[in-house]
Amino acid sequence: MKLIRFGETGKEKAGVMSNDTRYDVSQFVSDYNEDFFENDGLSKLKELVSKQKDTLPKVEASIRLGSPIARPSKIVCIGLNYRDHALETNATIPAEPILFFKSTTALCGPNDNLVIPKHSTKTDWEVELAVVMGKKASYVEEENALQYVAGYCLHNDYSERAFQLERGGQWAKGKGCDTFAPLGPFLVTKDEITNVDRLEMWLTVNGKKYQDSNTSNLIFKIPFLVHYLSQFMTLLPGDVISTGTPAGVGLGIKPEPIYIKAGDEIELGIEGLGSSKQRAVTYCA
Amino acid sequence: MKLIRFGETGKEKAGVMSNDTRYDVSQFVSDYNEDFFENDGLSKLKELVSKQKDTLPKVEASIRLGSPIARPSKIVCIGLNYRDHALETNATIPAEPILFFKSTTALCGPNDNLVIPKHSTKTDWEVELAVVMGKKASYVEEENALQYVAGYCLHNDYSERAFQLERGGQWAKGKGCDTFAPLGPFLVTKDEITNVDRLEMWLTVNGKKYQDSNTSNLIFKIPFLVHYLSQFMTLLPGDVISTGTPAGVGLGIKPEPIYIKAGDEIELGIEGLGSSKQRAVTYCA
Repeated sequence: MKLIRFGETGKEKAGVMSNDTRYDVSQFVSDYNEDFFENDGLSKLKELVSKQKDTLPKVEASIRLGSPIARPSKIVCIGLNYRDHALETNATIPAEPILFFKSTTALCGPNDNLVIPKHSTKTDWEVELAVVMGKKASYVEEENALQYVAGYCLHNDYSERAFQLERGGQWAKGKGCDTFAPLGPFLVTKDEITNVDRLEMWLTVNGKKYQDSNTSNLIFKIPFLVHYLSQFMTLLPGDVISTGTPAGVGLGIKPEPIYIKAGDEIELGIEGLGSSKQRAVTYCA
Repeated sequence: MKLIRFGETGKEKAGVMSNDTRYDVSQFVSDYNEDFFENDGLSKLKELVSKQKDTLPKVEASIRLGSPIARPSKIVCIGLNYRDHALETNATIPAEPILFFKSTTALCGPNDNLVIPKHSTKTDWEVELAVVMGKKASYVEEENALQYVAGYCLHNDYSERAFQLERGGQWAKGKGCDTFAPLGPFLVTKDEITNVDRLEMWLTVNGKKYQDSNTSNLIFKIPFLVHYLSQFMTLLPGDVISTGTPAGVGLGIKPEPIYIKAGDEIELGIEGLGSSKQRAVTYCA
């Protein structure tokens, strides 16, 4: 099943997508949030769709897509989780996962504009596979970890490298700017992705391919990440884990890094998780 | 005005405190959350209380207090914001604020038990003044910053130093464990705290004073912090900024650091913001 949220920013409604047709399920589901995942919303929705798909209102393809999930309690990201990306940024291959948080106010729709923050000089891209939690997870074992997962989404973990790396201390400053977390187009439930460790992924800027990899190159795999994170915090239903980006970010380009400028078009995709496209614009108040 | 939330964990109701008497306002206020602060809930509540205090149901002093605000979109913390604390941990005085996030699942009531996480050897304390936002803030000027603030709370920014500093990468692992953010006893609205930059603060473990300072020692003051953070992310109504801790944490004790063990009682307070007390317990599933 593919979950979508559609409509104006902040007023999105719940929907599902099937064979490229979008259906409105907002009369049955108030939102794809903690409550929905916690209370077995996915199973109920699956049954509803299988029984009533023909009677569900259709949603025009022209209507904006929002993030496929409501604002979660957290977006936890894994740093340097692809060997080639660690090398291109002159970082050491991590011995255990590196964690950081992205402000959840960064969340936006998959095709919304990327707003380059004020005073930014180094806004960069990162195609990533994001995991959405389906159940509350605290101290879970690696072998059971996938039971806690609802599904997967495409994510662009936009990063302002000067804010992240040159402003002192932690990475938080460069990761959570508004529009820095376009998620979707849809959440695919895990039953539809049997090979989550073998998915092609790519990202282009103005049509030129910069990232071209496969989730098989993940250093720490999803079950281990869920287990590992759950040692340090409780993951709630609807929470997002973004699993890291492969080589090919702007920061890593030789001989000189390349960063995003207004007007650029960033397009990205992961096999089975769809594609998204953001146009970079300058901040205006 | 002093806001409280009372009742069982996860089922807290809204209340106010006046001259040590607690009143139930849950028939008027569903919760102290983003929606409440955004829609001028504070002014409406103030009017209500001034008109109807005598008819409000009283809340027994024995009833548990929860965090005085509902789970916010984020808890942003400022690292090394007291000169003496930076020195005791052998860190450099920061040139600009250091930011990190605390997982919001760490939030708990002011007198709830501190659960020492599994495999923890270095759980530590940090008395802090926390700011609660009253309005959405993006790119705000320092001179207007206090207009965006709802009020202040006492916070213990518990930190597992081995998770934070010895497990690779960012601080996130040691800051967001469950029960690591006891907030309260109450939120004091900013009109009642005219000298937020001159408040005594202290923390004891088993009756022995370890932290004893004053918010006058903050390197970066509250208006600057709100302005600064709002350059990197949008702060939402109800969001928390924890402003940093002074010297006297366990990590800084000479000749050997001291960490929390099960049975310890940690008590802390800030002038005008009340006091709280946590008992440390071992994690059990």
